[in-house]
Amino acid sequence: MNHTPTPEDKFSFGLWTVGWTGTDPFGTSTRPAFDPWEYAAKLAELGAWGITFHDNDVFPFDATDEERSSRVGKLKDAADKAGLVIEMVTTNTFSHPVFKDGGLTANDRSVRRFGLRKVLRNVDLAAELGASTFVMWGGREGTEYESSKDLYAAHARYAEGLDTVAAYIKEQGYDLRIGLEPKPNEPRGDIFLPTIGHALALIATLDNGDIVGLNPEVGHEQMANLNYTHGLAQALHSDKLFHIDLNGQRGLKYDQDLVFGHGDLISAFFTVDLLVNGFPFSPDAPRYDGPIHFDYKPSRTEGVEGIWDSARANMEMYLLLAEKAKAFRADPQVQALMKEASVDELAQPTLAEGESIKDFLAAEEEFDADAKGAREYRYVELYQAALRHLVS
Amino acid sequence: MNHTPTPEDKFSFGLWTVGWTGTDPFGTSTRPAFDPWEYAAKLAELGAWGITFHDNDVFPFDATDEERSSRVGKLKDAADKAGLVIEMVTTNTFSHPVFKDGGLTANDRSVRRFGLRKVLRNVDLAAELGASTFVMWGGREGTEYESSKDLYAAHARYAEGLDTVAAYIKEQGYDLRIGLEPKPNEPRGDIFLPTIGHALALIATLDNGDIVGLNPEVGHEQMANLNYTHGLAQALHSDKLFHIDLNGQRGLKYDQDLVFGHGDLISAFFTVDLLVNGFPFSPDAPRYDGPIHFDYKPSRTEGVEGIWDSARANMEMYLLLAEKAKAFRADPQVQALMKEASVDELAQPTLAEGESIKDFLAAEEEFDADAKGAREYRYVELYQAALRHLVS
Amino acid sequence: MNHTPTPEDKFSFGLWTVGWTGTDPFGTSTRPAFDPWEYAAKLAELGAWGITFHDNDVFPFDATDEERSSRVGKLKDAADKAGLVIEMVTTNTFSHPVFKDGGLTANDRSVRRFGLRKVLRNVDLAAELGASTFVMWGGREGTEYESSKDLYAAHARYAEGLDTVAAYIKEQGYDLRIGLEPKPNEPRGDIFLPTIGHALALIATLDNGDIVGLNPEVGHEQMANLNYTHGLAQALHSDKLFHIDLNGQRGLKYDQDLVFGHGDLISAFFTVDLLVNGFPFSPDAPRYDGPIHFDYKPSRTEGVEGIWDSARANMEMYLLLAEKAKAFRADPQVQALMKEASVDELAQPTLAEGESIKDFLAAEEEFDADAKGAREYRYVELYQAALRHLVS
Amino acid sequence: MNHTPTPEDKFSFGLWTVGWTGTDPFGTSTRPAFDPWEYAAKLAELGAWGITFHDNDVFPFDATDEERSSRVGKLKDAADKAGLVIEMVTTNTFSHPVFKDGGLTANDRSVRRFGLRKVLRNVDLAAELGASTFVMWGGREGTEYESSKDLYAAHARYAEGLDTVAAYIKEQGYDLRIGLEPKPNEPRGDIFLPTIGHALALIATLDNGDIVGLNPEVGHEQMANLNYTHGLAQALHSDKLFHIDLNGQRGLKYDQDLVFGHGDLISAFFTVDLLVNGFPFSPDAPRYDGPIHFDYKPSRTEGVEGIWDSARANMEMYLLLAEKAKAFRADPQVQALMKEASVDELAQPTLAEGESIKDFLAAEEEFDADAKGAREYRYVELYQAALRHLVS
Repeated sequence: MNHTPTPEDKFSFGLWTVGWTGTDPFGTSTRPAFDPWEYAAKLAELGAWGITFHDNDVFPFDATDEERSSRVGKLKDAADKAGLVIEMVTTNTFSHPVFKDGGLTANDRSVRRFGLRKVLRNVDLAAELGASTFVMWGGREGTEYESSKDLYAAHARYAEGLDTVAAYIKEQGYDLRIGLEPKPNEPRGDIFLPTIGHALALIATLDNGDIVGLNPEVGHEQMANLNYTHGLAQALHSDKLFHIDLNGQRGLKYDQDLVFGHGDLISAFFTVDLLVNGFPFSPDAPRYDGPIHFDYKPSRTEGVEGIWDSARANMEMYLLLAEKAKAFRADPQVQALMKEASVDELAQPTLAEGESIKDFLAAEEEFDADAKGAREYRYVELYQAALRHLVS
Repeated sequence: MNHTPTPEDKFSFGLWTVGWTGTDPFGTSTRPAFDPWEYAAKLAELGAWGITFHDNDVFPFDATDEERSSRVGKLKDAADKAGLVIEMVTTNTFSHPVFKDGGLTANDRSVRRFGLRKVLRNVDLAAELGASTFVMWGGREGTEYESSKDLYAAHARYAEGLDTVAAYIKEQGYDLRIGLEPKPNEPRGDIFLPTIGHALALIATLDNGDIVGLNPEVGHEQMANLNYTHGLAQALHSDKLFHIDLNGQRGLKYDQDLVFGHGDLISAFFTVDLLVNGFPFSPDAPRYDGPIHFDYKPSRTEGVEGIWDSARANMEMYLLLAEKAKAFRADPQVQALMKEASVDELAQPTLAEGESIKDFLAAEEEFDADAKGAREYRYVELYQAALRHLVS
Repeated sequence: MNHTPTPEDKFSFGLWTVGWTGTDPFGTSTRPAFDPWEYAAKLAELGAWGITFHDNDVFPFDATDEERSSRVGKLKDAADKAGLVIEMVTTNTFSHPVFKDGGLTANDRSVRRFGLRKVLRNVDLAAELGASTFVMWGGREGTEYESSKDLYAAHARYAEGLDTVAAYIKEQGYDLRIGLEPKPNEPRGDIFLPTIGHALALIATLDNGDIVGLNPEVGHEQMANLNYTHGLAQALHSDKLFHIDLNGQRGLKYDQDLVFGHGDLISAFFTVDLLVNGFPFSPDAPRYDGPIHFDYKPSRTEGVEGIWDSARANMEMYLLLAEKAKAFRADPQVQALMKEASVDELAQPTLAEGESIKDFLAAEEEFDADAKGAREYRYVELYQAALRHLVS
Repeated sequence: MNHTPTPEDKFSFGLWTVGWTGTDPFGTSTRPAFDPWEYAAKLAELGAWGITFHDNDVFPFDATDEERSSRVGKLKDAADKAGLVIEMVTTNTFSHPVFKDGGLTANDRSVRRFGLRKVLRNVDLAAELGASTFVMWGGREGTEYESSKDLYAAHARYAEGLDTVAAYIKEQGYDLRIGLEPKPNEPRGDIFLPTIGHALALIATLDNGDIVGLNPEVGHEQMANLNYTHGLAQALHSDKLFHIDLNGQRGLKYDQDLVFGHGDLISAFFTVDLLVNGFPFSPDAPRYDGPIHFDYKPSRTEGVEGIWDSARANMEMYLLLAEKAKAFRADPQVQALMKEASVDELAQPTLAEGESIKDFLAAEEEFDADAKGAREYRYVELYQAALRHLVS
C-alpha cells in the first residue's frame, strides 16, 4: 500500500501543532516561529487536507480589528491557494493571565463575560471561514484547591456557557457543531469535564445539546488512565463523536502530545480499526467520517526539519495502521476466531424481540453455569492474531 | 465533639467489607469467616445504622430455595433485633466463573440471560427486605483485549440490561432506585462505565433512567486519576447521587479499599465538607442525605480484632472530618477569604436575568484584561485556612 | 523467518504462569489445576527450553519430607525426559498467612527466622536441581501504613536476609546467583525495593553483593511509571542483570501479567532490541545472555486451550520482535539517522583521554550555544524508522 | 505551639520558587519578576533561615563576567544583611536550547563539555558563597525515544560527569557535597536516575561517590508512584540523605510543586515524623539534620500576595506537622500499640549475635505457622492513632 497522504485521507493539523516552538515549563523555545500561512502551505505540500487553529494562533490577543482581519485574510488566501479546508476553529481561553481561573467558570463574573464574548466572536469567524466544527477545550476550567470554587455553580456556569454558545450558533443559523475536548488535568490540577464520559453527561443536561458533541484526544483520555477506543465507542453509542484529536502519550505523566502511534501502539491500532472498519457486528451504529485531525507537538529536541518529519510521521502511522486494520478484519482466521469468541452474539439483544420481562423470567432454559464458566473464548488467540497483522 | 457513632449518623457497612477474610491474588485467607448475622450484630454494637450485602454474601451461588430463604431470614431477624436497616442490596455477578466475561455484557447471550435473571431475582429480595437502593457494580463488564467485543453492542447491551432492571422495578411497583458503581479497571483490564461521568452519560440514554443514578466509590474514581469530590459535584448537578461508597486509596495501584480517610486525607475532608455542608453558595442545589456507606476492607495483616478496629476507624474518621468541616465553614476568616476569592460570584449567572445574547454582545463594559490577570484570588491562603482547621 | 520456538531460543516459563487457575480478588478459579509435571511436558512440546518454579508450586506448604521429595522427583524426571532445564527456583514467602507481614522484614522475629529457613532450604533444592539462578521476590516485604515499621530496621533486615542467603550459597559452594525482583506495590501498599534502582542500591550495601543481582519484570517497573528498557540498561551498567521476567502491562493498574508484547508494544520492541542486539555503540558493555523467561498469566477468561494459546503467544511475540529488531539495526538508513543524531558520540568520553580537569577548564574551545540549541537530532524520524520496521 | 518560623527551624527556599512568575505550557506569566535580592529580603522577613539558587536565577545565561559578579555580589550582600545563609547552589542545565538533549548526557560531545564547564564554574561560586550542598538535577538527561541514545553510554557519561564534578570539589578542597535530585519524567519523557533508588545505585558505581548523595523531592518520587518516606528511609540506610526538597503533589500528573502538605497530607505527616523524630527503634541510624528546603511554586492563579501566602504556608505546615508528630511519638497509647505490632522487634537482627548459619539451621525452634498467621498486629489501629493526632 501507498503510505503517501492524499486529500481523500482528510488529514488535518492544528496550526499550533507544527507551530509549537518548544517552550516548556523548564526551558525556552528551540525553534523559530513562522507565520500561520507558512505552516499552512507546508502542510498542504505534505499532503494534508485541512487545517485548524485558535484565534490567537493567527492574531495576537490584543490585535486591532484591522490586524485581525488582515492576518485572517492572509491565512484564508493561503489555504485557498493550497486547496486546504479550514475545517475547525477553536478559541484560546487559556494563555492570557486573565483566564488564569478559567473562561466560562472563572469565579470572577466579569472574566466570564469577557471570555464568553471572545468565544462568540470566534464563532462568527469559524462560520465565516466555513468551518464545520467549533472546538471548546476548557483547559483552565478547574481547580487546584477544592475550596476555591462552588462546584455546583461551576458545573452550572459551564452548562450556561455552552448553552449560550450553542444558542448563538442556532440564532445565527450557522452550520457549525460544537466539539468539547475533555482533559483530566494540566494546566489545572483537576479540570472540569475530565473525560469523554463527563462531557457526554454534561451535554445531556443542556437545552441546546443537540449540536454539542465531543472532540476526544488520545492522550487526554490516557492521562485519566482510560482506554481511548472504549471512550470513542461510548461517544458513538451516544451519537456524539463530532471530531477527533489523534496523538501519542506514554503513560501517566505530563501531556506529551507525541506523534500518533508513538505512544500506546496497540491502542492506536484498535482506534484506527474502529475508525476505518466500524464496529464489527453493529452495521447500523453511528460511524465517524469526519477529519482525521492530529493534535501533537514536534518534540523540543527537534529542529525545523523535525517539524516536518513529525508531521509526516502522523500521517504515515495512520496509513500504516489503516492498512493493517483492514487486513485484520478481512482475515478469515480472524473472523473464525471472532465467531469462536461469540463476538457477534453480543450484537443480539439479551431479551428476544417482544419478550416481556414476565415471559423472560418464566422461561425455562437449560443452563449449566459450571460448563459456561469453563468455556473457551480464546480472546488471547484473537488478540495475537491482531498482533500478527500489526507486527508481521 | 463526641466521635461515637449513633444511628442518626446513618453509617452503614457492606457485609462483604468486615467479612473479607484476606484472600488476595498472592495469598490465602488470614482470618476466619463468620456468619452474616454475626457481622450484623457486631456492626450494630459499634454504632452502625445499616447494613448492605450481595446475594452471595448471605447464601451460596448454588443455594437451594430453602437454604436461601433460611439464611436470608436469619439475617433479617438479626438485623431487626439489632435495629439495623438493610438499606441496600446488590448482586454478585462477578465471582462465579460463569461471569468471567461479564453478566450484562458477556458475549455469550445465554450468560447474559442467566445474569439478568439473577439480578432480577435479587431485586425482589431487595424490595422484600425494604432496601431503598439497588446497587449494580459491573466489575466483569469489560475487556482486556479490544478485539474481544463489539464495543457498540457492549454499550447497547449494558443499556438494555439496566433498562430491563429499571422497568421491572417499575412494573413491580417497588420503592427502589438503582445506583451504578463505576470503576475503571480490576478485575477487568478496562471496565465499561469507568467513571462517574461515563455512568451518567449512559443513564442519559436510558428509557427508564429516572430511577437510575450513581453509587460512586472514592477509590474507584481515584484509580482513574480523578478528583472524587468533583465527581460527586457533577453527579449532584445531574441530580443523580443516589448512594455513596466511602473508603481510602493511596494512588494508582490495585484497589486498596482502605479505611475512609486513610488514603488521600485532604480529598476526604472536602468530600465530607460537601456531604455535611453542601455547596457554599448554591442553596437550591441537590443535597445528598442518604446513608454514609463504607465499602472498605480490613487489611490482610489484621486479625479478627483488626476487623473491628477498622470498622470503627471509618466512622471515627467521618465524624472527625465532619466536625472539622463544620468549623471550617463557620469560620468568619474562611468566609472572608471566600469573598476575596469571589467564590460566591460563581453562583451568579454569567448573563444577567433576561439578557439576550444580542444585548450581551452589544453591551459596552469596561474591562481591563491585564488588571484582571493580575488580580488576587488567594486560593492558597483559603486552602491553608482549611488545612489549619483540619490539622490544628 | 520461522517463528517456531526452539531450545536455542532459551525460552523458559514459571510453572505458576500456565498453572494459574484464574482466582483473582473478585472471583474463583475458572480452570482446573494440573500437576506440575503435566505443565512441564506441555511446555516442552510447545518449544520451551526451561522451566522455573516456587517450592510450593510443586509441593504444599505443609508437605512432609516424603511428599516433598516424591513430587520434586516426579517433576525432575518429567523435565529430564522432556529435555527441559530447571534454570531457576524461587521461594514462596507470600501465600501463607504466616507471611502476611513479610518473610525477611516481618516485624515478628520468629516469622523472619521461619521465612529465612524456608528460603535456605529452597536454596539447597535449587542447587540440587542444577538451577543457575535463585530468584527472591519479596512481595510481602512492605507496608500499607508508614507507622507499622521502623523503616531503617526494615532495610537492615532485608539486607541481613539477603546477605545470609548469599553467604550460605558461598559456604555450600553452590553455583547459584541470586536475582532480586523489584515491585512497587501489590500485594502490599508499598513494597520495599520498589524498582530496579532501589534493588541495585541495596545490593551495593551488602557484604556478599557480588552474587546478588536483578531479575526485573516488565510489568513491575511499569507499575512504577518507569521505562523498563532504561531500567535494564542501568542494571547492565552495574553488571547486575542476572535474569529477566517478560510479560505485558497496560498502564497503572493492578498487576496484569499479560503476554509479553500485549502491553506496551513499542517498549517491548526496544527491550528485545537491547536483548538481541546489545547497546549500539558500547561493544564492551555487559550483555544479557541468560534465559528468556516469561512471567505472565493466561487471562481468567481463557479456558484450558487458552493456556497454551497464550504460552505460545509469548514466544511468538519475542521471535517476531527479534526479527524486526535485527532488521532495524541492520538498516543502513537507520544507521545513517543514528549518526545524524550523534548516537555514537555518546559512547565517547566527555573528557579526552588523559585530560585533567584543569586542562579541560583551561581549554579554549569554540562553541556557539545558540547554534547548538538549534541543531537537528531528528529523533522523531529515527523513531519512525523503528516503527516502520515494527509495523510494516 | 507557636507556628511562627525562626532561624532555628532552618527553613530555606529556592529563589526560583517564589520567583516563578506563572508561565506554564499553556499560558504566560501572571506575576511580575522581582530581583533576586528582593525575594531574599522578603523570605528573611517571613522567617526563612536560608536561600538557594541556580546560577541563572541570579544572572542571565549569557551574562558578562562583570554582570555576573555584580549581581552575585548584590545577592550576597542582601543575604548577609538579612542574616540569610546561602546553603545550596545548583546549576541550570535545562532552560537554554543548547541543553535540549541534556547537559551531561547529550549525544553531542561539545554540548557535554560546555555543560560540564558551566557546572564546574558554578561549583566555584557555591564554594565562594559558603554553600554546603551542590545540587544536580539532570532534568534534561533522558529520552522520549529509546532509539535516540546508547543507554549504556548514557549511564557511563552520567557517571563520568558526576565523578568529574566530585573530583574537582576534592581537588579544590571545597567543603561541598553533591546532592542528586531524581525525577522520573518532565521535561523529558523518561529521565535518567528516575528515583531515589536509581540515583543511589549510580552513586555506588562512582570513584568519588563518598561526597555524592541525594536531594530527594516529594513530588518527584510521587510521580513515580512511590512512597516518599520509604525513599528517605532507604537513602538514610545508605547514609546518603544530604538535602531534601519538600513540596506537594496530588497524584500522577504534571509536576505540580504545591505547598508542602497540600498534596498527600498523611505522607507529609510521616515524612516530618521521620525528620523530627528519627526512626523509632534505630537510635544509631543516620539522621537528617540539614536544611528544611522547600521547592514549590505559588500556583499560577495567585497574585503577588499569594507568593507570600504560599511561602508562609510551607513553613506553617511543617511546624504544624512537627508538633503533631512529636505528640504522636510521645503518646503512651501509640507506644503500646507499637509494641503490640512488634515494631521494636524489627530492629533486632534475625540471627542471634554470633549465630552461624549452620547453627541457625540446626536450631530446633517451636513455631506454629498457622497461629502466627492469625496473630494481631493492629496496624490499622496504630495508624488511626496517628490520624487522631493529625486531625484532632
